[in-house]
Parts: sequence; structure tokens; C-alpha cells
Amino acid sequence: MTSTAETRFETALSHAASKTDALLDGLLRESASPRLLEAMRYAVLGAGKRLRPFLVLESARLFGVSEASALRVGAALECMHCYSLVHDDLPAMDDDDLRRGKLTTHRRFDEATAILAGDSLLTFSFEILADPATHSDAGIRSALILDLAKASGKDGMAGGQMLDIEAETMGALSVDQIIRIQSRKTGALFRFACEAGAILAGTDRTPLRKYADDIGLAFQITDDLLDIDSTGEQLGKATQKDMKHGKATIVSLTGSEAARAKVESLMASAIAALNVYGKQAEILSDAARFIMLRKR
Amino acid sequence: MTSTAETRFETALSHAASKTDALLDGLLRESASPRLLEAMRYAVLGAGKRLRPFLVLESARLFGVSEASALRVGAALECMHCYSLVHDDLPAMDDDDLRRGKLTTHRRFDEATAILAGDSLLTFSFEILADPATHSDAGIRSALILDLAKASGKDGMAGGQMLDIEAETMGALSVDQIIRIQSRKTGALFRFACEAGAILAGTDRTPLRKYADDIGLAFQITDDLLDIDSTGEQLGKATQKDMKHGKATIVSLTGSEAARAKVESLMASAIAALNVYGKQAEILSDAARFIMLRKR
Repeated sequence: MTSTAETRFETALSHAASKTDALLDGLLRESASPRLLEAMRYAVLGAGKRLRPFLVLESARLFGVSEASALRVGAALECMHCYSLVHDDLPAMDDDDLRRGKLTTHRRFDEATAILAGDSLLTFSFEILADPATHSDAGIRSALILDLAKASGKDGMAGGQMLDIEAETMGALSVDQIIRIQSRKTGALFRFACEAGAILAGTDRTPLRKYADDIGLAFQITDDLLDIDSTGEQLGKATQKDMKHGKATIVSLTGSEAARAKVESLMASAIAALNVYGKQAEILSDAARFIMLRKR
Repeated sequence: MTSTAETRFETALSHAASKTDALLDGLLRESASPRLLEAMRYAVLGAGKRLRPFLVLESARLFGVSEASALRVGAALECMHCYSLVHDDLPAMDDDDLRRGKLTTHRRFDEATAILAGDSLLTFSFEILADPATHSDAGIRSALILDLAKASGKDGMAGGQMLDIEAETMGALSVDQIIRIQSRKTGALFRFACEAGAILAGTDRTPLRKYADDIGLAFQITDDLLDIDSTGEQLGKATQKDMKHGKATIVSLTGSEAARAKVESLMASAIAALNVYGKQAEILSDAARFIMLRKR
């Protein structure tokens, strides 16, 4: 990755992050319960790379969609992503104490508050999308909601998380089985993020779907690689958990070398899928490279 | 309540219940994870009076809205209601073993599965509403989603549940404070159920809102009265929990006599609010009487 591309990408990512944070900060100002609001804000604000909102913004830019619309979709998606982190961290699930270098929500507050904050972020995600401020065309708002619900529910993220938990007691998984689980657990929200621009523009999303599937899987494999290579301090969360639990990952099944090669081929394939959009898609290409090279 | 009215009401309620069950049974047929699907079906099917779907159906009938649309809204609402029961029953919340005479979802499966089944039901609720099968007009689908999100999120049901938990450590509450909490915790979904017909018809919902607020509060007070008067066997769930926890209810603050009088005056006020709809609203009037007279 040349330093120009890196700078261009990092500028776009930090633009998306600061705009998303400002929007979420403004949207999350009131609640029946100040404690619930505090926990929701704790879970969603001031942390995270905002990679998903960035992907929404960049996919929207391909089609000339207004940034205000794209930012609201990105904010909704981030609420969805962060609710899943809060619930996944619970004692009954992954039982994690740290997330992004901070105490997890149930450790900072308590379990009941974390469950309700997750539920409320999930719900708020749809509230943001259904609001006419997101797009003046209700047909587009409905399409966004239907797609996000499918991406995050029983056939998407939540279904993938259930499969992932079940896999712990299922014995040896194949690489294909792991890929199928991950394409739901983490892939589905990536897919929604990348396709959101096309949904907002009411246009064909096929090339973006290919790009999304490739970078989603590449992101997961680099996560597994980082998990093996890093300390908790570097990542801001517990590391080497999969190894400790004897849980199969693509990396543990194929070895680090093959996994790195797989990430490279996914990156090339993701970038090739963007050809149809020409120079407009340069920053999305940069993003694919970043995902491969990231250190945390 | 005359026996004719009682029969008429019971026929309408059991019609709503069997149609809602059949619809949910058909909608919940597939998932990435069979275990997740089983837990969702366990939580939502074959139990419950389906009072909320009944209210949607009856409010829709006032305006000549198609029953197919109303049934889908009722099914979505029941997914939302049942997710809240699954999460409220968790050990970190109310820690209940029984619900409607069956083991609670986390006792029948496990906590992680119950959390994910609740999350997935919540999400599925919006998936049902966003589907064009619910209504051909996307503006109406969006309005339903926005309203249901507000009714169930941080300013509605989830916010009310958080306030209710906080109230346990807040010392003495006044009757007004309890009413404000309950109007969110249980009232908000009642309000959505009663207003749904007007939203589907794109018409004024003010009289239905008054009716909903009255029956929502009456429902809660009769719940508290039943909790004191009944055994667990009759109700199919743990009873006298509020008393055991020293938690104030309207009944404990005002006494049973005053509480019963309050329910009567709420019933009269709810029925008066329906006058504007004439004979069409007879079954909704019956419902207000039923809520007052119910035994479980």
C-alpha cells in the first residue's frame, strides 16, 4: 500500500468515524432511564474504527447518494454492531471483561443493564432507519430495514453467533463450515454496509456484494491471525481465546501461511469486483488493502 | 358483562389467537441454526392469550383495513412482546423458571440461546413489518416500524423495564411514579396494538390512544391484583414476587379496594373513548370489560 493511498484511506476512515460519532452523540441524548442511556452511549460511542459506517459512506459515494443519508445508515449499522458486541460479551456468551481497551458494558454497569442496553441499541437501529430523516423515499427506508433485519437476525448475525456457539461442542469443523458460519456471524453486516449505497440509490448491488463477501472473510481471517500474534494490550481485548478453547479457526486448520495467502487472494478478488465502478472506487480498494494489513 | 358479550369477545379473541399462531408458525420455518429456530418457536408459539394481536385486529376492523395486514402487524407485535418476556425472565433480570405454565426459555434451553432467541425475535418483528406483504404502501410500513421501535426501545418498553429494575433500589415510589413506569413497560406496546389499525388506515389515532392508555394501566393493576390473590398454578408463573421483594405496586400502595375501583373507572373511561366509533367498537368495549374481569 503506497503512502498516498494509505493517507487517503486513513483520512476517509477518520472522516467517517468522527462524523458517525458526532451523529450518534446527537441521536442518543434522551431516554426514559438516564442509566439505560448512559449504558447505550458507553457501548456505542468513542470506540471502534467505524469500518462499517465508512463502507456505507464509500458505497453511497459511488452513486452520488447524499452523505447525510449514508451517515444515518452507518449510525444505525453501528448501533446494530455494538449491540451484538454487548450481548456477545455477556457471561452466558463469551464472558469477556475487556472490549476495545475498556471494561465491557456488563462489567462497567451490570448484566441486566447490558442486556437492556443491547436490546435498546438493536431497536434504535431500526428507529434511525425508519425515520424520514434517513431518506425521503419510504420505499428505500423499508428496503434498508428489511435488509438489515435479515442481515442481523436468525438467518444472519444472530444465527451465525448461535452456530458459532454450537460449533464449540460439535467436534472438528471443516474450513467450509467455518466460512459458512462466519459469512453470517460477521459477513452479513459487512454485506449490508457495502450494499447500503446501492440500496439508497435503488440500483444493482451485485459487484458490491462480491466485494463485501471477500473483505468480510478477509477481515475474519486477519482477526484470527491477530488473535494468535498479539497481546491483549495491543488489541484491547482478551486474545488467544479460540486457541485456549480448542476452537477451530481457518488459521488453526490451514496454518498462518496459507491463511495469509487466502487473505491476499480475497483482497485481489475484492478489488477486481470494484473495476466496474472505475476510479470512484479507489478508496474502497484501499480499504481492502487496509483490512489485510491492519495491526488491530 | 352479559354472556352474549362474553361469547362475542371470546370468539374474537380465540379467532385472533388461532390466526396469529398459524401465521407465526408459517413465518418461523427456517433459520441458519435449527436450535435458534426451536428456541424462537418455543418462546412465541402455543401460549399466551394474544391480546395484543386481538387489539390490532379489532382496531384495524374499525377502519376496514384488511385482516391479512392486521394479522402480520399482530404477529410482529407478538414477537416483540415475547422477546421481552424471554429477556425479562433471564437470571440477571427477574430470574424466573416458569412462564405460562412452561419452563422459561433459558431453563428449557440455556442462557446464551435465550439471549439470542430474544434478539432474533426482536429483529424478526421488524423484518415482518418491513416486508411488502404487510402493506403495499411503504410509507405505512415505515410508520409502523418507527412507532413500534419507539414503543419498544429506550423510551418505551425497554426504558420502562430499566426504570422498574432501578425502582427496586430507589425506596418508596409514589402511585404516579409507578404509573409512569408502567405506561412505558407494559403500556407502550398496548398503545401500539390499539393504534395500529389507525396507522394502517393512515387516520387519526387519538381516541384509540386514550382507550389504550386506560386499558394498559387497568391490565397492569389487574395483574398486580391477580399476583396477590392467585397461586402459581393458576397463573402459570411465579406469584407474589413483588410482595416478597418488598416492591411497591399500585395495589400495595392504595389497597385492593381502591385498586379495583381504579380499574372500574379506567374501564368506563376506555369504553367512553370508543364512542366516536359507534357500534363498530363493541368488541373493543367487551375487551375492556374482559381485562377487568379476567382471572389469569
